Amino acid sequence: MTKQQINKVVVAYSGGLDTSVIIPWLKENYHCEVIAFVADVGQGAEELNGIEEKAIASGATECYVVDLKEQMVEEYIYPTLKTGACYEGKYLLGTSMARPIIAKAQVEVARNVGADALCHGCTGKGNDQVRFEGAFAALAPELMVIAPWREWDLVSREECLDYLAERNIPCTASLTKIYSRDANAWHISTEGGVLEDTWNAPNEDCWEWTVDPEQAPNEAEFVTVKVQQGEIVEVDGEAMTPYNTLVYLNEKGAKHGVGRIDIVENRLVGIKSRGCYETPGGTIMMEALRAVEQLVLDKSSFEFREELAVKASHLVYDGRWFTPLCKSVLAASEELAKDVNGEVVIKLYKGHATVTQKRSDNSLYSEEFATFGEDEVYDQSHAGGFIRLYSLASRIRALNEKK
Amino acid sequence: MTKQQINKVVVAYSGGLDTSVIIPWLKENYHCEVIAFVADVGQGAEELNGIEEKAIASGATECYVVDLKEQMVEEYIYPTLKTGACYEGKYLLGTSMARPIIAKAQVEVARNVGADALCHGCTGKGNDQVRFEGAFAALAPELMVIAPWREWDLVSREECLDYLAERNIPCTASLTKIYSRDANAWHISTEGGVLEDTWNAPNEDCWEWTVDPEQAPNEAEFVTVKVQQGEIVEVDGEAMTPYNTLVYLNEKGAKHGVGRIDIVENRLVGIKSRGCYETPGGTIMMEALRAVEQLVLDKSSFEFREELAVKASHLVYDGRWFTPLCKSVLAASEELAKDVNGEVVIKLYKGHATVTQKRSDNSLYSEEFATFGEDEVYDQSHAGGFIRLYSLASRIRALNEKK
Amino acid sequence: MTKQQINKVVVAYSGGLDTSVIIPWLKENYHCEVIAFVADVGQGAEELNGIEEKAIASGATECYVVDLKEQMVEEYIYPTLKTGACYEGKYLLGTSMARPIIAKAQVEVARNVGADALCHGCTGKGNDQVRFEGAFAALAPELMVIAPWREWDLVSREECLDYLAERNIPCTASLTKIYSRDANAWHISTEGGVLEDTWNAPNEDCWEWTVDPEQAPNEAEFVTVKVQQGEIVEVDGEAMTPYNTLVYLNEKGAKHGVGRIDIVENRLVGIKSRGCYETPGGTIMMEALRAVEQLVLDKSSFEFREELAVKASHLVYDGRWFTPLCKSVLAASEELAKDVNGEVVIKLYKGHATVTQKRSDNSLYSEEFATFGEDEVYDQSHAGGFIRLYSLASRIRALNEKK
Amino acid sequence: MTKQQINKVVVAYSGGLDTSVIIPWLKENYHCEVIAFVADVGQGAEELNGIEEKAIASGATECYVVDLKEQMVEEYIYPTLKTGACYEGKYLLGTSMARPIIAKAQVEVARNVGADALCHGCTGKGNDQVRFEGAFAALAPELMVIAPWREWDLVSREECLDYLAERNIPCTASLTKIYSRDANAWHISTEGGVLEDTWNAPNEDCWEWTVDPEQAPNEAEFVTVKVQQGEIVEVDGEAMTPYNTLVYLNEKGAKHGVGRIDIVENRLVGIKSRGCYETPGGTIMMEALRAVEQLVLDKSSFEFREELAVKASHLVYDGRWFTPLCKSVLAASEELAKDVNGEVVIKLYKGHATVTQKRSDNSLYSEEFATFGEDEVYDQSHAGGFIRLYSLASRIRALNEKK
Repeated sequence: MTKQQINKVVVAYSGGLDTSVIIPWLKENYHCEVIAFVADVGQGAEELNGIEEKAIASGATECYVVDLKEQMVEEYIYPTLKTGACYEGKYLLGTSMARPIIAKAQVEVARNVGADALCHGCTGKGNDQVRFEGAFAALAPELMVIAPWREWDLVSREECLDYLAERNIPCTASLTKIYSRDANAWHISTEGGVLEDTWNAPNEDCWEWTVDPEQAPNEAEFVTVKVQQGEIVEVDGEAMTPYNTLVYLNEKGAKHGVGRIDIVENRLVGIKSRGCYETPGGTIMMEALRAVEQLVLDKSSFEFREELAVKASHLVYDGRWFTPLCKSVLAASEELAKDVNGEVVIKLYKGHATVTQKRSDNSLYSEEFATFGEDEVYDQSHAGGFIRLYSLASRIRALNEKK
Repeated sequence: MTKQQINKVVVAYSGGLDTSVIIPWLKENYHCEVIAFVADVGQGAEELNGIEEKAIASGATECYVVDLKEQMVEEYIYPTLKTGACYEGKYLLGTSMARPIIAKAQVEVARNVGADALCHGCTGKGNDQVRFEGAFAALAPELMVIAPWREWDLVSREECLDYLAERNIPCTASLTKIYSRDANAWHISTEGGVLEDTWNAPNEDCWEWTVDPEQAPNEAEFVTVKVQQGEIVEVDGEAMTPYNTLVYLNEKGAKHGVGRIDIVENRLVGIKSRGCYETPGGTIMMEALRAVEQLVLDKSSFEFREELAVKASHLVYDGRWFTPLCKSVLAASEELAKDVNGEVVIKLYKGHATVTQKRSDNSLYSEEFATFGEDEVYDQSHAGGFIRLYSLASRIRALNEKK
Repeated sequence: MTKQQINKVVVAYSGGLDTSVIIPWLKENYHCEVIAFVADVGQGAEELNGIEEKAIASGATECYVVDLKEQMVEEYIYPTLKTGACYEGKYLLGTSMARPIIAKAQVEVARNVGADALCHGCTGKGNDQVRFEGAFAALAPELMVIAPWREWDLVSREECLDYLAERNIPCTASLTKIYSRDANAWHISTEGGVLEDTWNAPNEDCWEWTVDPEQAPNEAEFVTVKVQQGEIVEVDGEAMTPYNTLVYLNEKGAKHGVGRIDIVENRLVGIKSRGCYETPGGTIMMEALRAVEQLVLDKSSFEFREELAVKASHLVYDGRWFTPLCKSVLAASEELAKDVNGEVVIKLYKGHATVTQKRSDNSLYSEEFATFGEDEVYDQSHAGGFIRLYSLASRIRALNEKK
Repeated sequence: MTKQQINKVVVAYSGGLDTSVIIPWLKENYHCEVIAFVADVGQGAEELNGIEEKAIASGATECYVVDLKEQMVEEYIYPTLKTGACYEGKYLLGTSMARPIIAKAQVEVARNVGADALCHGCTGKGNDQVRFEGAFAALAPELMVIAPWREWDLVSREECLDYLAERNIPCTASLTKIYSRDANAWHISTEGGVLEDTWNAPNEDCWEWTVDPEQAPNEAEFVTVKVQQGEIVEVDGEAMTPYNTLVYLNEKGAKHGVGRIDIVENRLVGIKSRGCYETPGGTIMMEALRAVEQLVLDKSSFEFREELAVKASHLVYDGRWFTPLCKSVLAASEELAKDVNGEVVIKLYKGHATVTQKRSDNSLYSEEFATFGEDEVYDQSHAGGFIRLYSLASRIRALNEKK
């Protein structure tokens, strides 16, 4: 298919400046009908209110808003959480996990409306273009992909605003925008501005969601969660849906300044970028699940889970969700999560989410075994034989060297 | 060699109750001369003062105190730190790293004094017996190993105290000791007591070194470190030896409640135990090195470093320091650390050690590349081809499925 | 439970000399009833004929022979094969895979007959004791385990024969037995004798099953197999059960000298041993599955499958079948095997099993893409962008170094 | 730098049709001086004879032929061999290992002659373009790279021949060339023709170097090699340089049909290709080194070496030789190779290279330990304790489940 043959495009529309420009630009350059698609992944009312009108005003024929909030937590966040994935040791993958679910829903809309192309508003230096297009390749290889930022000549907000003004398309976007942000139910990311120099500490306005730990309450607060098969099923005694759990924990975490990260990370496209991420509820969830794992996973299972975490962090970050490899890694971690049941108390205090109490019916920990005294299961005399064989190769090697 | 043939034993002596019992017990049961060996790994004056006299009073012929502090940081801690090792995601391996260096120095003393056996005071349910005996097997397979705790019938502090009293050996140890502790320049660990039930939060007396974050200063403090090849060479503008760096950072960290960990971990011997660890300076060092890595390691190098971290954490924890495998893993991480040069500012505040500023001459981060605008090195048009090939297998698979 | 309380033991009985001794020895030393359990894992009629009578003659109250042949191939061999596991690069795990299934069936018999202990005839230096007892621990921790070879004083065949003779228990075992062997439908292993010196080449009598490649037919023979989800479902055009497939391929492979391996391997207990293994059909199956994978697995999936192979080889070898870790690894490889469908022609010739033809509906290979000319899917111009970003970190690093 | 500014290009010249076209094409399209660079990596006299005259005749100003044969074996092949790398389980990386050394020497020539650009003749669908340009990016980011096959319109041999004919440049290349080949001292690869359909078996003319196993001598032949630190230092009693070792073993292997591989592999650029590879001497070297490893590496070192093999196979295949990650992986394997000393006898017979005898002063194998009887080092009673602790987590888990 060629550019000329495109009749209908579904664009992932955010309501922001760039996707507002994309709609008229597509119509002018591809001479096609444009359908706006908005994924509600919990980015909040501020971004969603009136978004359909906005899309239509920009020239879209229709605008589909799809609520993906519960699905995102259940089908994307939990599987990732069970792996323990944390990109480059810090980043809880908030933007990365949202991309495949958005792309998948966008493909579904495209098929429903009979579109022949997909469009996104990601820039040419970022990860998101790879995540969107990687998902498109796996889910809808027959649809063309349009990436305006790699195609057009617009290079500044000013030019974008001019573009809209010339066409009398209303836009409330400001001329200057210090930071580039992405928000969903799981996190807010902030890039740009003062953060571009790694020798600058983040400003207070780099953080949008969480309270500064220094301004957080002086009194600690405690949250209790119940975990089943690696998922939180109850918070503070109340059963909640996955999304509601996240919302509840976000509110608690944000209040106590939990979940701020400032990181320089390797983008998939070969450059590094610096970002501040806020993941208040997610940080609490991560701590809770890891704490139950401490009780139930044996040593080598734990080690494998850690290896899976490294692998999954790259797969998810790199937009490889819809690949056999990712499915294989997730199958492995789902298997390990089967025993991850228990209860955890987390203390929230000035940026900390610290597990203070934990228990599990599947716990391999036993007071009886761990303590000094005699027990049925562990006989200290076993240790001598264990150590001897465990270090036997070392012994033989050392004896060899003495020959 | 048989038990009967042992003439001289070198015992790793701590001055505590159990090693004080071990000395007379060895003499009575092995009819041999006992040499006490004390490793100074920074456990502090309280434990070391008068220790030689104590050893002699307990029946040792001689007592060797060897200062291993600088060597421990330089040859054991830094190599481990460069791997990023953190056992089961939390524990900075304070006891684990100290064991091989102690065992090695003990072997050297044994050879110098012509001993034919080595003895340690580790219990039969712990990791340390494996670490000591693993090192002994690798370094001195010709020497017999005696592990009294797996051999004798004493099962309580009371019995140990009685044992000494019966022999008129002076001992200031108290009848009850709530916690089992291990201290060195890197950390203090605390086990037992209230911690034995994982549903108990740690008491304040579970922490011995660091200030409670809630009691820590309300004012943040900043520390600046300079890193060369993965090691800190300057702190707050002053060049320091590795050990002095650690001491300096310990003081800062402890004051701000940095480095408290409460973990249930898998012991090598197949059971789980729960411990509270305090690693104030080490936590700061870890954060600092990881931050420089964010600047200098490319994506796949970073991923490998994370894999090495998992491997090294188990190797060090499991007492496999003197093995070809450990040497191989350390060789890999040393290679990666060659570029880990830079400067880092760390903010200390109520338990947090947060890197706020970082820079490096080896940084792969560049403001120019990461930002929106044009540059020489990154051409946005490259991304299209990259993505296409990067997701090509997904595309082909999806096309296949449509056939 | 103590030794004295044991009433009934189920022993894994092979009909060989040592398990024949074990029956009376158990009765004399444990004063208990002994039930013989024989697993038919395809070791052949020679070993199984009259085995029940033999067991009774040795003093067993009952003898249960359980046919595990199909189950072994379906539930143990295929899952392992899908991982690609090959221990230390050579050994196809024939003995290792048989142990968990035998142990599991033995536990079931024990529960059915109300036994309170399990007994095996493995020696104290081998892997099999760990595999049996590892399975017992996971499946029946309440049952006592008796390992006579680690307990009694018999140290030679002669003593074993004397033991039986003294008790008038008939035995046809010969005084000398050069090799120690283990046989099942998958393989025959041979240890001992001339093999004990690694500088000796194997004798012709080290091989029991397969024709010497030098004596194999001068004419090659071809076998065609059809693979579905990583399992062979048809051979030479005929649908066959898993076990019958193996039998068929064994016959073909053995005739052509396929599947001989001579290896020094690391036992789990810390020593090395040398063995000759014959796995004629298994070698063909391995080649066939790997060939289909070449067609259907993408690059990073293939790499993960190789990593899983290494992991699984150790897990299976080490007798860790019934662990969460093993289940997790197998879940990952099952997921990857879902696309492993296709057809393969294998050429058998003087020890070689060489795949000469392969095809798959899931193949990611396409003549069109791979060849020189233009195509829709791969545009050569994409490569420039791909390479640029793929090597961007190298470029930036090199530019840095020039500064 | 722009296209227009290029004054002097160094082209990796092979003497074949495409690089013969590249010389005049560069002059016409870049208006620059062209320097031919020929790497002698053992591709043989046929390709090298008269190559300088040919290059000059095609329009090159100068032609540099650089002998890289010893360096290739010593600095590229041995480090790779020590890792055990074998791409996707089969391919011994013959082309992959040659690319970085060629690229590096080409860069050196470019710097010596003051060139401002580098050019290679790799196609836009292959791996070699990535390998060359990956090396260029790491070694000479300041030099421009020209990849004519991604730039020009020529798409067939006929067009290339016409191009030369129009310019009266002599060329002996034939119009049709069935296979695409790459040769060096380590291997010959063959792609194209009948191989493009994976359901075709290779023709006999797919193999160029090795004798068909069916035509190989009916008498086996034996080769003895001595290995030091993972490198062969003596063959059949004679000390030889690395390259001469390879030549000697190539001759032996080729005669006996050793080292033929037929594989469908994943290219780095996202497509699969099918190739036949002949690596006669290399296959023997691989077998020899792996056999010594069987004697000297302990279990977990062996497992890590296998993991390194997987990693290294991808790194080398993907052209990432000059990266910190590759250096790190090689540092790890060099460390493990320190003990890889020994002697090995390899039997060559109709395509097989089978190690029949092996020994090593560093061997951890000991007849005494492995056999049935008593010994000093291994006490069978140790096994009971070992097994108990080794399977303790399984036991505890199982006991839990019974509660």
